[in-house]
Amino acid sequence: MKIGDIGEFGLIDRLSSIIKTDDKDVIVGIGDDTACVNINGKLILFTVDIQVENTHFIKDKINPEYLGWKLATTNVSDIVACGGVPRWSLISFTASKDTDLSFIEAVYKGIKEAIDYYKFSVIGGNISSSDKLAFDMFFVGETERFVGRDTAKVGDFVYLSAPVGLSRAGLELILNKQDIKEDFEEKLILNHYKPVARIDLKDTILKYANSCIDISDGLVQDLYHISEKSNVKIVLQKDKLPIDQSLLEFCNKYNKDIYDYILYGGEDYQIVLTSDKELNNMLKIGYIEEGSGVYLDNTKLPKKGFNHF
Amino acid sequence: MKIGDIGEFGLIDRLSSIIKTDDKDVIVGIGDDTACVNINGKLILFTVDIQVENTHFIKDKINPEYLGWKLATTNVSDIVACGGVPRWSLISFTASKDTDLSFIEAVYKGIKEAIDYYKFSVIGGNISSSDKLAFDMFFVGETERFVGRDTAKVGDFVYLSAPVGLSRAGLELILNKQDIKEDFEEKLILNHYKPVARIDLKDTILKYANSCIDISDGLVQDLYHISEKSNVKIVLQKDKLPIDQSLLEFCNKYNKDIYDYILYGGEDYQIVLTSDKELNNMLKIGYIEEGSGVYLDNTKLPKKGFNHF
Repeated sequence: MKIGDIGEFGLIDRLSSIIKTDDKDVIVGIGDDTACVNINGKLILFTVDIQVENTHFIKDKINPEYLGWKLATTNVSDIVACGGVPRWSLISFTASKDTDLSFIEAVYKGIKEAIDYYKFSVIGGNISSSDKLAFDMFFVGETERFVGRDTAKVGDFVYLSAPVGLSRAGLELILNKQDIKEDFEEKLILNHYKPVARIDLKDTILKYANSCIDISDGLVQDLYHISEKSNVKIVLQKDKLPIDQSLLEFCNKYNKDIYDYILYGGEDYQIVLTSDKELNNMLKIGYIEEGSGVYLDNTKLPKKGFNHF
Repeated sequence: MKIGDIGEFGLIDRLSSIIKTDDKDVIVGIGDDTACVNINGKLILFTVDIQVENTHFIKDKINPEYLGWKLATTNVSDIVACGGVPRWSLISFTASKDTDLSFIEAVYKGIKEAIDYYKFSVIGGNISSSDKLAFDMFFVGETERFVGRDTAKVGDFVYLSAPVGLSRAGLELILNKQDIKEDFEEKLILNHYKPVARIDLKDTILKYANSCIDISDGLVQDLYHISEKSNVKIVLQKDKLPIDQSLLEFCNKYNKDIYDYILYGGEDYQIVLTSDKELNNMLKIGYIEEGSGVYLDNTKLPKKGFNHF
């Protein structure tokens, strides 16, 4: 059997069963994007995310500073979604000896920009030779309360931090390779290359979220994580889903269904959370009911989105 | 300029200067194999090491359980060398969808064997697609005292945990590909495939070591790290260097200089430490003097060993 036959989440289940262990200091272990342990009474978060050549980026096409920025952002986003802040990081990368020093230095300049924006320190790492570039980044964060995915409550509202779907449209524009792009297209492309983790929402998440996730695989697929782990039904209200003007122009120009981008586009790194409070700094897009599944008004939505295999 | 032109350590210097930050909780940052931070009064260790296809292993040749074991061992060894014990780990790997599930599961069985032997928990990770297999493992450990490389004292003795050079001889035998191997050759090969981190020495290191390092790049190159960071001269006594019987047979059979293997072979994951105490469970192989460099009796040794580029 090939790993592609069972998919990413099937694979995680299989491997987890091999290595499972007991440790009373582990608050959240395998199966979440972020692990949480108790160290002398402090809740410490761990997460890891990688950018691989030809999977996540094309070496000759990408701006390496964006690559460094995005590498840090995808990780910080996972930590923020748990109500935490990033503290320390280790960078493990592979490259061939023929790699231009200027490329690697530019990746690190992008990471430095992220260090200054998100406020963390790089404290170590590893360099190994390979004919393929890959940048793996391990983050340590801390939180006062672990905000997970299994604690959404019936009666909660669903809140979204900003319109989504932009990143996927940006990626399609990059892959299209047309030379001249309109302003709204440049904006969508920048959203793909340089997403910003919503660290500005950390207090909101920590204080008010019953459950929370960042949108990396797509709004619906990520909400399915909350739905399944919390055993609740999530209802999105179509007329409340925010629509980005640039994405609208894109969909009009290329004759695309905008809801396909909003519901299933990935890599936006916006925050979706559930809360029983009224929040003024986020967009209310739905609510939680008893039941299961993710719905758009009365229609159950398919669980699809980004899968690595 | 290519990164191969400045080498691994030159590259680390260049990149460190880009991302340096201040954080009063960081006890040991970039430049060591293991970082150390203070979390609520507890000294927490972080390290990362990777095994990459065609760099560290050939997929069709390696026993994947050995690969999993070695992946954990190289990391645990770094933590033990700081006087610590491993606690938690995250595994980040890349594979193509055509990878056999049985191969990945066998790697995880090797990791499980390491979990049971070294006592730690895997609490998370990441899976990403790539046409190349790579297993990156992040470890979190803890220690009561960070034993570093910059604290060797003039007057210290140099102690080694066991004979070294076996792993490199084993690697050469693997690359030779001869079908029938003698017993001593099988032993050397097993030393390469399945090294054991010296977690049994953790109390010795914690109590008695002024400085310590594990031998991953070769005895001399790793001692140069201590010599340079501690600003001392290290003298190895040739007549005290332990000689492994299998390595001796190997060198006799293939007409090799055994000191080339002992001094410059890598990946033994034995421990070398300096202490002003008399230790009965380790081998005294030399002493520390004022000055600089690593010597074999009166001869200054070249700083060579494993370099990734």
